[in-house]
Amino acid sequence: MSQGIEWSIHCCALLALLPPKRTLRIEKIAQFYDLPVPYLRKHFQDLSRAGILKTTSGPKGGYRLAREAKEVNLLHIYEAIEGPEHAFRCNEIRQNGPNTCGQKVYPAACNIATSMWKAEEAFRRELEKVSLEDIVKTAALQISPERRQKSAQWLEEALSNQ
Amino acid sequence: MSQGIEWSIHCCALLALLPPKRTLRIEKIAQFYDLPVPYLRKHFQDLSRAGILKTTSGPKGGYRLAREAKEVNLLHIYEAIEGPEHAFRCNEIRQNGPNTCGQKVYPAACNIATSMWKAEEAFRRELEKVSLEDIVKTAALQISPERRQKSAQWLEEALSNQ
Repeated sequence: MSQGIEWSIHCCALLALLPPKRTLRIEKIAQFYDLPVPYLRKHFQDLSRAGILKTTSGPKGGYRLAREAKEVNLLHIYEAIEGPEHAFRCNEIRQNGPNTCGQKVYPAACNIATSMWKAEEAFRRELEKVSLEDIVKTAALQISPERRQKSAQWLEEALSNQ
Repeated sequence: MSQGIEWSIHCCALLALLPPKRTLRIEKIAQFYDLPVPYLRKHFQDLSRAGILKTTSGPKGGYRLAREAKEVNLLHIYEAIEGPEHAFRCNEIRQNGPNTCGQKVYPAACNIATSMWKAEEAFRRELEKVSLEDIVKTAALQISPERRQKSAQWLEEALSNQ
């Protein structure tokens, strides 16, 4: 699984903390988690294409969530980064070899592929249950007062300096 | 997900069809699905290490399942190939950046990691439900008579020629 999943969920959770209509420059977001801007930009482009992030241009431009935190779930972010395809790719190897009978005798996907896809579906259904709002709310219970205070101060400064 | 998962499940399902105590040479197994022997051997080594396949040496040596088909499930094969680690690797990026507070304030995994791992757990629980015996039984209902006959004949010849 791409490292971009961890980066993207954390960065989207950070953006969920912004006041309404405000944006944050990608350089500041990258700084918050000590991430390389060029790689992060690639993921942000994927997230924007998926309708999760919105970018505004200009000297005060930056990124914000394109919709409310409760309307973005972990499956949206996962699919934006990894794509909508199954992780298990069926190459129909059962059709290969000396006993092949041509495509006509394989009308449906085999039970190996469908079993793998059913398991992937269970994975996706779990991700779908967790919204960015859930992440932010439960994170607030996990974060130490020291960390919360530092982050809030950093965010205030970052917003006032741009 | 590695292509080795598809290869391994199909090959293990083929080996589940062998008469008791019989083995099949890797070259024949590879031929059945038109797979490259060197890559397949790498996966077979992983499957052997995981106690799923057993190999016998000598001129009549080859591979067979190390235990009954009902005792091998898709999670066993998945973990033999992909390893037991989570697909989502948490790099604790929340501890990075200008607001870091040192490891002491992060006693437990964050809710992003635990949410991803919970979803992976759902994936694994589904794979665990499906045994090689299930695969072979439902495949028998899916396979056309033409394919079944060709394969049975091929297997008989392969076993008698080694």
